[in-house]
Amino acid sequence: MKIALITENSQAAKNEIIHTALTAVAEPLGHQVFNYGMYSAEDKASLTYVMNGILAGILLNSKAADFVVTGCGTGMGAMLACNSMPGVFCGLVIDPTDAFLFGQINDGNAISMPYAKGFGWAAELNLQDVYRKLFEGERGLGYPKERAEIMAKNRGILKTVKAATCKDMLSALKALDQDLVKAAIAGEKFQEYFFANAQDEGIRDYIKGLVDSRVLENA
Amino acid sequence: MKIALITENSQAAKNEIIHTALTAVAEPLGHQVFNYGMYSAEDKASLTYVMNGILAGILLNSKAADFVVTGCGTGMGAMLACNSMPGVFCGLVIDPTDAFLFGQINDGNAISMPYAKGFGWAAELNLQDVYRKLFEGERGLGYPKERAEIMAKNRGILKTVKAATCKDMLSALKALDQDLVKAAIAGEKFQEYFFANAQDEGIRDYIKGLVDSRVLENA
Amino acid sequence: MKIALITENSQAAKNEIIHTALTAVAEPLGHQVFNYGMYSAEDKASLTYVMNGILAGILLNSKAADFVVTGCGTGMGAMLACNSMPGVFCGLVIDPTDAFLFGQINDGNAISMPYAKGFGWAAELNLQDVYRKLFEGERGLGYPKERAEIMAKNRGILKTVKAATCKDMLSALKALDQDLVKAAIAGEKFQEYFFANAQDEGIRDYIKGLVDSRVLENA
Amino acid sequence: MKIALITENSQAAKNEIIHTALTAVAEPLGHQVFNYGMYSAEDKASLTYVMNGILAGILLNSKAADFVVTGCGTGMGAMLACNSMPGVFCGLVIDPTDAFLFGQINDGNAISMPYAKGFGWAAELNLQDVYRKLFEGERGLGYPKERAEIMAKNRGILKTVKAATCKDMLSALKALDQDLVKAAIAGEKFQEYFFANAQDEGIRDYIKGLVDSRVLENA
Repeated sequence: MKIALITENSQAAKNEIIHTALTAVAEPLGHQVFNYGMYSAEDKASLTYVMNGILAGILLNSKAADFVVTGCGTGMGAMLACNSMPGVFCGLVIDPTDAFLFGQINDGNAISMPYAKGFGWAAELNLQDVYRKLFEGERGLGYPKERAEIMAKNRGILKTVKAATCKDMLSALKALDQDLVKAAIAGEKFQEYFFANAQDEGIRDYIKGLVDSRVLENA
Repeated sequence: MKIALITENSQAAKNEIIHTALTAVAEPLGHQVFNYGMYSAEDKASLTYVMNGILAGILLNSKAADFVVTGCGTGMGAMLACNSMPGVFCGLVIDPTDAFLFGQINDGNAISMPYAKGFGWAAELNLQDVYRKLFEGERGLGYPKERAEIMAKNRGILKTVKAATCKDMLSALKALDQDLVKAAIAGEKFQEYFFANAQDEGIRDYIKGLVDSRVLENA
Repeated sequence: MKIALITENSQAAKNEIIHTALTAVAEPLGHQVFNYGMYSAEDKASLTYVMNGILAGILLNSKAADFVVTGCGTGMGAMLACNSMPGVFCGLVIDPTDAFLFGQINDGNAISMPYAKGFGWAAELNLQDVYRKLFEGERGLGYPKERAEIMAKNRGILKTVKAATCKDMLSALKALDQDLVKAAIAGEKFQEYFFANAQDEGIRDYIKGLVDSRVLENA
Repeated sequence: MKIALITENSQAAKNEIIHTALTAVAEPLGHQVFNYGMYSAEDKASLTYVMNGILAGILLNSKAADFVVTGCGTGMGAMLACNSMPGVFCGLVIDPTDAFLFGQINDGNAISMPYAKGFGWAAELNLQDVYRKLFEGERGLGYPKERAEIMAKNRGILKTVKAATCKDMLSALKALDQDLVKAAIAGEKFQEYFFANAQDEGIRDYIKGLVDSRVLENA
């Protein structure tokens, strides 16, 4: 699975701790981790939690990523921003049991975690436990397993509902403030990772256009 | 403030505990609580967590309610369903500090809570503390207050973003499976509470049409 | 390692859930689990949390057990009772990180957990995660490992302190209300497990005397 | 009530945050707060969590304090150290509901909290909520109140049990490593606060002797 890590500005200094914990767990399980940044509080390109959501929407809908790991101070803003995007189902995860149940019952494609509230000493241990519960086995099996069918059915209905209430991602992208979208994709590694992995032509081409226009603007 | 309580089927038996805690805190603070149900596991009208989201979308967008209190076993499904609706910003709240920070920083219009996971003995105390943190003072003031302005700005941007990615509620309602919408508004008290409080004519009329058609179907 | 499970009366109905989770984790790791009871709310022999502490003191000081897993509604009463005994260092553990840090830093010989407060749906998952963090590797290595030495030193000092403030266990047993001690060892399996495993002759003989006197009383 | 705040070396830098939160809540409720230190990581007199326990034992048994608020990185070490002292019943408290239930059910005379694990951004809010639940009303009333009597009975038995297993505080003090005791009372404000408030003559005189001998040693 391709896992995208997205860190916003208020917790950018913790990107390394999070990235280290995520790769320590996910890579031995056969997953790839793409650290889209931010990388430090001093990054030139600054992401707000709202931009985290837009970036998550781009990565998941283009299939550049299969799963997004994001967050903010409390996790709430990044979660709300992700869930405002078509096709993104982002859980707010605090502890390993949350992670397991979210994976088995809701089987979403993103999690947001708090990296300031409750994030004290030894929090890296909890991060690792959470990632393990999410990434080590098959998701969507239900818990308890006897309820798998009804849980899968409700997930399916939720997807249909969100598809009905939201625009498709390309239309959404066009309707957004274009400067905001450009800021969301301004990270240092975005182009390298995105263009190598995105599979949806429409979204990829649209993003290409934005990148090119930005180059022109800055020329 | 008009607060709507929405309980789904898996935790319907706890509606009374939740309603008691909510009214004990909210009413003395001058708020009105509307218990849209479910009321017990035996209710004729059964709400799934997905329907909770649709109902929350109807109540908030029509201004029949100013705030929605909902949840499910882990809180995650109801949160995802609420956040799939236009204009709904639903936090997942576990403890009083979550509630306070969500109120001050994100200033959303709905919370989802877990009523099974972590919900053990004396959980009613935590419910009351959470409600107090949400409903006892002004929300949206930021925390710490020095960051109020930037927090308000990001909230505003998030609203614009969600408005761009989602259809408006009336279009969303029309795009949804109509049987699902009918099931979401089938609760015993829905009509009494909704038609007395809804302020958006378009949504109210559309819902009226659904109610009438259901009457015809059942005739 | 010999692990003794001790459940008090208010949560006796959960003994099976706890025992199942504990054996599922501890036995494959090579540990033995002794379920000293209670086994159900209907047991003839009823243990209060205070008796849990006395029983823990007897088992650990006699070396009938190397580690005690106990608890009560909030975990607090059983923890206080255990820590009132000589040579018992009982942590209050809520989540897996607590368990890991208690094992690595404090390296005590007992844990108490809440089996009512916060103990909701899927709590068995958290129990298993906690047990795994405690029982799967070596304890007392410190966290982070660079601080192992100072942590070990402080643990050693704490042991010396407690040895200075408390009587030895045999003297403590004699000073206690003898009916209370008898009630603490009245569980159905106590004699079978205890006499097969206790290594401290003084404590074993004293307990034997109490058991015999009880038989006489009941004759 | 006289509340003693005791902070150990690993979290000494947070003494001000804790003290501010504690006084903000406790003083308007009519309690007095005595900040026994440490005050900063640079204090000349350094307290380990073991010394926190000894100091708590001295303050509570001499009635210089009615209640002790302490802690360490995880709260576990300071809790164990406090509970190794005669007459000290120290809860490990994480959240406001813990605090309330400990106050109502166990009615102990000390709490230990984690000031590193889980202690992230906005943790001062949780501190205040915890203190409010502990100090704002009468303790020991039971929860639910119908169980008050049995809860009070078990508390009483626990006190008797601990009195039987421990030495009295003066004997305990004499049995302890005297350098350790001297280090525990070496804080800058100890003498000022202790001698003004201690009511047990035996303990006070013994401590006086230690203080005097230390003066001689340092002379």
